[in-house]
Amino acid sequence: MTRPCNDTFLRALLKQPTAHTPVWLMRQAGRYLPEYCETRRRAGSFLQLCKNPALACEVTLQPLARFELDAAILFSDILTVPDAMGLGLYFTDGEGPRFERPLREEWAIRDLAVPDPWNHLRYVMDAVAEIRRALNNTVPLIGFSGSPYTLACYMVEGGASSDYRHIKSMLYQRPDLLHHILSVTADAVAVYLNAQIESGAQAVMIFDSWGGSLSAAAYREFSLAYLQRIIGRLVREKDGQRVPSIVFTKGGGLWLEAIADIGCDAIGLDWTIDLGEARRRVGDRVALQGNLDPAVLFASPEQIAIEARKVLDSYGADGYGHVFNLGHGISQFTPPGNVSALVDTVHEHSRLLRRKMHKLSSSA
Amino acid sequence: MTRPCNDTFLRALLKQPTAHTPVWLMRQAGRYLPEYCETRRRAGSFLQLCKNPALACEVTLQPLARFELDAAILFSDILTVPDAMGLGLYFTDGEGPRFERPLREEWAIRDLAVPDPWNHLRYVMDAVAEIRRALNNTVPLIGFSGSPYTLACYMVEGGASSDYRHIKSMLYQRPDLLHHILSVTADAVAVYLNAQIESGAQAVMIFDSWGGSLSAAAYREFSLAYLQRIIGRLVREKDGQRVPSIVFTKGGGLWLEAIADIGCDAIGLDWTIDLGEARRRVGDRVALQGNLDPAVLFASPEQIAIEARKVLDSYGADGYGHVFNLGHGISQFTPPGNVSALVDTVHEHSRLLRRKMHKLSSSA
Repeated sequence: MTRPCNDTFLRALLKQPTAHTPVWLMRQAGRYLPEYCETRRRAGSFLQLCKNPALACEVTLQPLARFELDAAILFSDILTVPDAMGLGLYFTDGEGPRFERPLREEWAIRDLAVPDPWNHLRYVMDAVAEIRRALNNTVPLIGFSGSPYTLACYMVEGGASSDYRHIKSMLYQRPDLLHHILSVTADAVAVYLNAQIESGAQAVMIFDSWGGSLSAAAYREFSLAYLQRIIGRLVREKDGQRVPSIVFTKGGGLWLEAIADIGCDAIGLDWTIDLGEARRRVGDRVALQGNLDPAVLFASPEQIAIEARKVLDSYGADGYGHVFNLGHGISQFTPPGNVSALVDTVHEHSRLLRRKMHKLSSSA
Repeated sequence: MTRPCNDTFLRALLKQPTAHTPVWLMRQAGRYLPEYCETRRRAGSFLQLCKNPALACEVTLQPLARFELDAAILFSDILTVPDAMGLGLYFTDGEGPRFERPLREEWAIRDLAVPDPWNHLRYVMDAVAEIRRALNNTVPLIGFSGSPYTLACYMVEGGASSDYRHIKSMLYQRPDLLHHILSVTADAVAVYLNAQIESGAQAVMIFDSWGGSLSAAAYREFSLAYLQRIIGRLVREKDGQRVPSIVFTKGGGLWLEAIADIGCDAIGLDWTIDLGEARRRVGDRVALQGNLDPAVLFASPEQIAIEARKVLDSYGADGYGHVFNLGHGISQFTPPGNVSALVDTVHEHSRLLRRKMHKLSSSA
């Protein structure tokens, strides 16, 4: 029996009733935690931390020791797949991730191949397995990957970009080349996520951080189509348990109906959309994960509680199919104590809402 | 009679029939034009260029000499108002605009006052008047300002920001202070735009570049409410001509219905929303301006024509109430020849669509 003691997160993703709304935070193992900074110092660099399963496990568990979170997420980087494809990932201070060999030449694009996750990405699989053992079925473990379009942005631009000049030039001028990159990358992401599931991940999330920079039509053709291909290839059950999938396109609020149609179990939402409106738009097709503005965590615990309750109220008292999260990764400038205030409010207020609802329905 | 010879732009904003779809480009006087770079070199700096009416006039007219654009837009900076409030605007290479004295202290916030546009912003009014004279009623002149929330972002952060940490901390922790900043700034923008209209601007546009970084609820309270206040105070007619207003919230596609309700004549759209869908959502309440992805201009003239036609087709053959534009400012890396391809396609294809439509309706 591999079901975790606290399986609220998995049940919410499958739209089953839960006693409270589960909560976890994107980038919950991160620089806002002094213990994370300490481990990272010991590792030597961010990349060495990612590539060391024991240390990756250590930082994955750190936020769970502090806060009553309902899920753990594999500590890793979204760019492991293109790194395994040979692009040479490295990190610079202040500029973030970069690739030594950005994809600009047709021959290099035609040369791309799907890396074997059990070989070049073995360190990720080892980390997943080690984290699962360490969690000892307390809460579920989420595996993840970057989306093909987001990975392609980094691969073609060579790093973060403000105007996506190179990839968008390719998109409009040589769509055949971009489709080739996306096709190989989608295949790579599918086998990568399936290997994570095989290694112990109990849910998977695909981060489409830059899909929101596309036009509506280009989003469907160059991002959503490949997300759909991956979802269609994912292992849906492991050890008799359903493995739910979450798709998160930052800035994708306009396209929710289309995302809800690709077969994923849940959609991650940034904070620009009202959660109740998002729920009305997707109906009961998918669960929703989100969507507090991470900047709320800069305010006082009292203000944080007010804003967190607004999100829960907007979703609806039953809370079925809602996983609470931020609308983006937690900021490094967040005081850790504020996270306690958030997590406790989500649990308490969602329990209160459900009790009120049951009282109303039993008195009716 | 002050009506320009080519008043297609003004008529489209008022949803009157036009023989073709008018087109202008955000930041059309900019670094992609070698003659602009030359004038800027002569001016000494970007800010000196803004503050010199003769040179501001010169660069405003440069794109009109090259392309068949249907409107001119005042060359200026969006941060002139906070500069006139005493925050000390300056520019750094690579980092963009910054303020010497960011607004962080309550006493400084309480000290904010509405600057007299005829005094501290006289150089803008002189530029508007000089450009109007130079245009000699060929095409209309657009005046503009940053939105209160966007100006407040720069004023509180002290420059561009990736996480808006300071202003959002204020928004969630001290909303009273932020409302005070926004209130004074909205009053300042209203008198500033009215002074531009008095000086000769025939339409005005408010750029809400950062409103899209807010939650749905915060957008209404901290950006849209102040946009509405400004629109309510604008001079609506000058010399017997209606002066249309355009509101552009980048990333505001989720909130179109609410924006359409504040009394503006037109909404500017970024490229993430399908234009036809936007039109269905706002109905005949407002005109729409947009929304080609500026990155399309990195492609070949043939590809540019294909993408421009898609935007026109999506809006609808009648084209009533559509002003063609990019979804954001033109990139400095755009080959100028590609702009000709875009402008000519918009004119030719929109004429063709209207001819087809009339043929259909006369044969019916």
